[in-house]
Amino acid sequence: MSQAELLTRSPTSAQMRIALQHYIDAINARDTDAVVALYADGATIEDPVGSPAIQGREAIAAFYAKVVPLGLKLRMVAPARGSHGNAAAMAFEVDAPAAGGGRSIVRVIDVMTFDAEGKFTSMRAFWAPDDMAAG
Amino acid sequence: MSQAELLTRSPTSAQMRIALQHYIDAINARDTDAVVALYADGATIEDPVGSPAIQGREAIAAFYAKVVPLGLKLRMVAPARGSHGNAAAMAFEVDAPAAGGGRSIVRVIDVMTFDAEGKFTSMRAFWAPDDMAAG
Repeated sequence: MSQAELLTRSPTSAQMRIALQHYIDAINARDTDAVVALYADGATIEDPVGSPAIQGREAIAAFYAKVVPLGLKLRMVAPARGSHGNAAAMAFEVDAPAAGGGRSIVRVIDVMTFDAEGKFTSMRAFWAPDDMAAG
Repeated sequence: MSQAELLTRSPTSAQMRIALQHYIDAINARDTDAVVALYADGATIEDPVGSPAIQGREAIAAFYAKVVPLGLKLRMVAPARGSHGNAAAMAFEVDAPAAGGGRSIVRVIDVMTFDAEGKFTSMRAFWAPDDMAAG
């Protein structure tokens, strides 16, 4: 495959769904390196949507180094959706330690875009303060 | 409220979730005018994501004039998610007449952005050919 073909190629929806499941599994396994490795260089994260985005491998590694050790449990609530382009989306719940002890559930939809190699070039997480409930 | 305040104001996540439910209900009721009325002037639709977007009330009205009379049945599969900005997302299933007779189920995630009045300024629908199954 030529460089030009590679640059314009999108992963299939099946490949994007597998990458989303790897993301869920890596967070549940508390494997920060595996999570960060799913991202392309220069990728962006906007989590939650409406907050300033972060960019680049170093910022992304720092983000997950804070988040992953919390011991989150992520569970898709429906099959991930593909698209007719280089993007996919999934609805999931995050079972997280609550600030005051116990657990809380956060309802989230993530949208990822992908490069030709199937790495995430962006992640946007849709959740509001009132998407949280006691677990 | 001043014009400047209105322009920078976002609807609450609760308001955005209600608008998403109105969208589902209006399509299920085959009320094309009610669906189109949820959109702001100049809004864009990209359905499916990866296809050319359409823009403006006339194009949006033509789009739903084709889609709504099909008799689709939409059902959210999880509560709609808000954000910390002017966007919200929902995972749902579309029960639609299949090309060869019978019904098919299409799994979709829609992402909408909103103006200060709670009208949709954009809709992007994530679904791939392999997000369809026999109903």
